[in-house]
Amino acid sequence: MPIPSTVVPGVRGVRRSAVLAWLAVALATATAALAAPAAPPGGRQENAASRLIAAALADSQAAARLAELCDTCGPRLPGSAGLDCALAWALARMRADGLAAVRAETVLVPHWVRGEERAECVAPVRFPLRLLGLGGTVGTPAAGLEADLLCVRDFAELEARGGEARGRIVLFDQPWEGYGKTVQYRARGADAAARHGAVACLIRSVTGTSLANPHTGVMHYEDRADSAWTGVPMIPAAALTVEDAGRLRRLANRGLPARVRLYLGARTLPDTVSANIVGEVRGRERPDEIVLIGAHLDSWDVGTGAHDDGAGCVIVMEAARLIARLPQPPRRTLRVVLFVDEEQTQAGGRAYATLHADELARHVAALECDSGGFPPVGFSVQADSSIVARVRELAGPLATVGATEIGEGYGGVDISFIVAQGVPGIGHRVDSPHYMDYHHSPADTFDKVDARDLALSVAAVAGLAWALAEDPAPLRPPVPAP
Amino acid sequence: MPIPSTVVPGVRGVRRSAVLAWLAVALATATAALAAPAAPPGGRQENAASRLIAAALADSQAAARLAELCDTCGPRLPGSAGLDCALAWALARMRADGLAAVRAETVLVPHWVRGEERAECVAPVRFPLRLLGLGGTVGTPAAGLEADLLCVRDFAELEARGGEARGRIVLFDQPWEGYGKTVQYRARGADAAARHGAVACLIRSVTGTSLANPHTGVMHYEDRADSAWTGVPMIPAAALTVEDAGRLRRLANRGLPARVRLYLGARTLPDTVSANIVGEVRGRERPDEIVLIGAHLDSWDVGTGAHDDGAGCVIVMEAARLIARLPQPPRRTLRVVLFVDEEQTQAGGRAYATLHADELARHVAALECDSGGFPPVGFSVQADSSIVARVRELAGPLATVGATEIGEGYGGVDISFIVAQGVPGIGHRVDSPHYMDYHHSPADTFDKVDARDLALSVAAVAGLAWALAEDPAPLRPPVPAP
Repeated sequence: MPIPSTVVPGVRGVRRSAVLAWLAVALATATAALAAPAAPPGGRQENAASRLIAAALADSQAAARLAELCDTCGPRLPGSAGLDCALAWALARMRADGLAAVRAETVLVPHWVRGEERAECVAPVRFPLRLLGLGGTVGTPAAGLEADLLCVRDFAELEARGGEARGRIVLFDQPWEGYGKTVQYRARGADAAARHGAVACLIRSVTGTSLANPHTGVMHYEDRADSAWTGVPMIPAAALTVEDAGRLRRLANRGLPARVRLYLGARTLPDTVSANIVGEVRGRERPDEIVLIGAHLDSWDVGTGAHDDGAGCVIVMEAARLIARLPQPPRRTLRVVLFVDEEQTQAGGRAYATLHADELARHVAALECDSGGFPPVGFSVQADSSIVARVRELAGPLATVGATEIGEGYGGVDISFIVAQGVPGIGHRVDSPHYMDYHHSPADTFDKVDARDLALSVAAVAGLAWALAEDPAPLRPPVPAP
Repeated sequence: MPIPSTVVPGVRGVRRSAVLAWLAVALATATAALAAPAAPPGGRQENAASRLIAAALADSQAAARLAELCDTCGPRLPGSAGLDCALAWALARMRADGLAAVRAETVLVPHWVRGEERAECVAPVRFPLRLLGLGGTVGTPAAGLEADLLCVRDFAELEARGGEARGRIVLFDQPWEGYGKTVQYRARGADAAARHGAVACLIRSVTGTSLANPHTGVMHYEDRADSAWTGVPMIPAAALTVEDAGRLRRLANRGLPARVRLYLGARTLPDTVSANIVGEVRGRERPDEIVLIGAHLDSWDVGTGAHDDGAGCVIVMEAARLIARLPQPPRRTLRVVLFVDEEQTQAGGRAYATLHADELARHVAALECDSGGFPPVGFSVQADSSIVARVRELAGPLATVGATEIGEGYGGVDISFIVAQGVPGIGHRVDSPHYMDYHHSPADTFDKVDARDLALSVAAVAGLAWALAEDPAPLRPPVPAP
């Protein structure tokens, strides 16, 4: 099957001829596989879900697909050739899987580029610093900058020592206290330091475990048009490795504060056109009622975004492929959405909510996979308790793959914009003690994903998605259009 | 106490004035601490060992010392300012500890420098490759080199596909099968590839666990004066991360072999002068009988050599400090030796054996710590079975710190040259499931060392060293000089 050279309006043509030639051959093989005997015929509802789970475990292409995506396209930063490659790949794969209405829905996305980066401690002892600029940071002046370091533990210590920050680089060597708490320094550290006159901000990478791998992630500048921030410069921000941050802090504790030289070549270019990728299994009885299963196709520009969120993408793609192969489609429409730009501005999730505003009343559920390719433990349901209870009933057959924990909780970032409009949100929950070791770092690569774990998650998501789409009563009744 | 500006003959003066000023203050404090009340008086032999163990656990300065060494001197490649700093530090610390005959014994060491390094996969998809040149490698041509990759699993596959290697870069993507087996590709891969006409050699880093951290280590070229190797070029060699090696292999398996661009700025300069650092607790009865405890002060030039082998250095230094504080010295002389150049040519170990040739008959044992700063499990004894049995008896009190496994085994690299001349060798054995995660990589830093684990090892080494030095009968009778 030929691959269109420009499949997404406005997106640059994919320039990787060798990869595309290979993909064409690979897809021909996959298309042939679709002519194989269909999955066992469905029986009673629970039996059908169980058979779907068994099929997912026996015939999961998820790991092979994830390797394709990660190895041949690479990381997928908005505006990059890697994301363009991934968009083309996802469209081609969904079409080969026999999904209906496969399409790219245009989304305007930010276009931040990292550029070259380097840093070193120049005194009292000279050593290179490993770092990654934070997503969205401004660059340093072209000649770089050099300043004494002020090392603080947290925002409270910065406030107490604010008078020392002027003209310095502030390092937040904050201890790891879980993502939700620690990530605040990545998000808001630069502005907090800039308020006190700092010229740049460094943080300890947001992780509890490190092998000298720095972790990036998005940071934010408050709106300088807001009078509270007028005149505060936007200063560059980067994450050091845990190792380097610790060494600088220990030197400071000895009375040997460091002097640091920093160069970040980061730039923010004009927004660029990208897309959400959508495909469907049309419902046999109520095709206008929709069960959405989604993940995000973009990633950071280091590693290859294998767990975050290549894994989620192939889980939902594989779940849809298996459901499309059933002897009959489920009652409602299953819609797969690969969102773009989760990591930076969530433009994909917003765009979906806008473009599909008139359909949201008939979205009976939205399930997001963005927790990594680990074994499933259950689902968190962002809806009222009667809906949580019904999801728990529907998820009964998933006990065979370990997805037993169904409780109230967060659905997901991409779906949050439609959840805010009343769509029940469902988040894929996994057993992932090592997720943060890899997260947003060069270590988030295919070799970290276990094929069996991924197949178990495909089974859990396929089973629940099918049950939601087949359930005689919808998870929530269709809401009359306003 | 003032620090001599050039403490080692021929070694460049240490240029780190801020670090030295700080060190002077820190040493004054440590010297004052020596005036504190002495450790409890010794009683029967086993009680004395037990008290020494208790003192090691109650008053271990090992972790603080390791931080000093790693953070203020940094990595310690022969010929580097970091090693010069460490030599000065060790001399000053041993003197402050009250050791006798503290001295630097000159050793001529290799002077390999890494220089700048960079590599990327340029086709079929462009991405940067993280790598470290192997210790001792030649550099690439000044413009770098670019060639197609031949990816093989092992030597056998290279031999089978030797005809494909000419003009290519050979990548050994060898699976991790333990250090002893896997390290052969690091040591001998370049020459094996060069025999088949390859222009460079890459290996997968020698580790079972990776977070995108490359691991270096020494490699060897066979002597080109040997007729078997005449005319075979010496080609550059580097270790990729596990992640990048895996991606290149998977691309090759898809029929998408990579083209790689490589630049290594490595050079080997003329040998340079460095030193082993030696200090003693003079024996009260038989000062000419020697129990040697040693470790190596050099490290690779990435990370800060915390586990390999800063930990060993502070363990033996701390053991000697505690023994020097006992109300009376042990019967024999305890000699601490911090060897130089373990990692590359073992010049320190060889030089010690040569310089002390006439004393070796009176070395009753040599104990080496080069297994990392982890909790002790026991000691391996490189001597005949009666000596193993006696060490097992002497080590009885060490059960309280978990050092219970006393068996026949390897002593250590640095002491191997005197063990070869009949000195019983004793290797410090630890529980170190994560040692290879850090080994020879940027992740071998102080934050990976647990202070309590280190103190337990100090206790084990101090206890056994004291018992060996105090034992009424020597572990082996003095050998008449030849």
